Amino acid sequence: MSNYCYFNGQILPEDKVRFKTNDLGILRGYSVFDFLRTYNATPVHLDDYLVRFENSVKSFDINFLTDRDTIKEKVEELLFWRADKTVDVGIRLLMTGGYSESGFYAPELPNFLIRIEDLHPIPLARYAEGVKIITHEYQRELPEIKTTNYSRALVIAKAAQIQKATDALYHLDGNISECTRNNFFIFKGNTLVTPKSNILRGVIRKIIIELAKTKFEVEERDIYLEELKEATEAFKTGSNTRIMPVVQIDELKIHKKQVGHNTRALIQMLDEYLHATTHQTI
Amino acid sequence: MSNYCYFNGQILPEDKVRFKTNDLGILRGYSVFDFLRTYNATPVHLDDYLVRFENSVKSFDINFLTDRDTIKEKVEELLFWRADKTVDVGIRLLMTGGYSESGFYAPELPNFLIRIEDLHPIPLARYAEGVKIITHEYQRELPEIKTTNYSRALVIAKAAQIQKATDALYHLDGNISECTRNNFFIFKGNTLVTPKSNILRGVIRKIIIELAKTKFEVEERDIYLEELKEATEAFKTGSNTRIMPVVQIDELKIHKKQVGHNTRALIQMLDEYLHATTHQTI
Repeated sequence: MSNYCYFNGQILPEDKVRFKTNDLGILRGYSVFDFLRTYNATPVHLDDYLVRFENSVKSFDINFLTDRDTIKEKVEELLFWRADKTVDVGIRLLMTGGYSESGFYAPELPNFLIRIEDLHPIPLARYAEGVKIITHEYQRELPEIKTTNYSRALVIAKAAQIQKATDALYHLDGNISECTRNNFFIFKGNTLVTPKSNILRGVIRKIIIELAKTKFEVEERDIYLEELKEATEAFKTGSNTRIMPVVQIDELKIHKKQVGHNTRALIQMLDEYLHATTHQTI
Repeated sequence: MSNYCYFNGQILPEDKVRFKTNDLGILRGYSVFDFLRTYNATPVHLDDYLVRFENSVKSFDINFLTDRDTIKEKVEELLFWRADKTVDVGIRLLMTGGYSESGFYAPELPNFLIRIEDLHPIPLARYAEGVKIITHEYQRELPEIKTTNYSRALVIAKAAQIQKATDALYHLDGNISECTRNNFFIFKGNTLVTPKSNILRGVIRKIIIELAKTKFEVEERDIYLEELKEATEAFKTGSNTRIMPVVQIDELKIHKKQVGHNTRALIQMLDEYLHATTHQTI
């Protein structure tokens, strides 16, 4: 079943939306995006995503011509047009530099797409058993801006697969930042630690830090690769992923490859939070 | 007048070619390209560009399904369909990761576009008088691969314009690499110097080095910002630009803001070379 898109002012079935070949996202990677999903059919923390998206657009000097209320309205409208309103979906906001006559210089009008996407469920066994990730030396350009520049992540995805890993953890000179599309956390006993710099500030990351503070010590600071040996638990977080336990990093096994108690506790706290947030009555 | 494109096996008018919204170039910047132009209606050094394009595609682990002879054939066909065969055009090769169901993982089939583009002539006064460029600390990711990741170049283009400059010169910790879309050279007397590392290996750069060797000393090596003070002339090169004299870098005036003799000599040598190459009879 085709989803609906919002594209430059119009709501259209996805297969009616096309980009011309001189779009600056296509020709020059001049494009930012954001991605959230619904839980219980409700977008969670939509404002946080919209603020981040606006910041990304402004950082790229792209003319932002659609105000936040209009975007919210269009998201609601797109969600209304879903074939089955009980099924959760992804919501992607994408702003490119627009159609360029010269193939380089940006025109006045950007291209703005909101795309409703089917979610590709992550196998539940991964949550139960945890996953292996590999380390990779790399620092994303402009890490705080959600650019579409994920080519390295795609190349690494293949390398990770060969090593039976599901993701890669980026570091620069040993200083850990984030996974290819997720934020990263470790537990050292009852202290939760997560990198502070050169990361995308995830909305789920923010929620987890707030939730964790009610039960654990929380430190936002640099983590170096050597410190992973002292990790008693590890996990990664993302808007679709939520909390994914990490039980192996390269050859290092975390907590004997078992998902730890604190991670389980956080998973439950986040589930309860998302449930409560999406069942609020105003 | 609309140009023709080659897209995934078909020759079509440009306005009939569109990308679906789940193309990995659009969603994830997973895309490489190359660009050349005709001189005297003839593509120059096409093989060099095709080899570089193939290397870019392979570096990105994208399935390359079209062999070099087929690409050449399609380029010829597209050039044949031009409205006016005496007018020079740009030829852009673009390969994206293809249409992704998940919005991240790459499918088997890439999207391959060859696009004939109108050239946007550079004002001739610039060649006569030389241009100002600004310096900018930045190192392109994967500099030897022609990825579509030019977002920094686009943001800088606006900053340069404000400073009445036409381009920016990238350096990392003072070590100069290249301009946003051009290679960079200086003369120190009769010695021509150009950066060797962390650059895109330009086809025009290669031609110029070969031509210059017949008349000057040529050094391919690191150039640091401080050395610019000793430059007696400077210029940048590109497939469309050919040789553009640079007479000012930030506040530093080169050769009293006059285009130097050696640069003029090279411009003439390149013109003659391009003329001879495009009027060869086999």
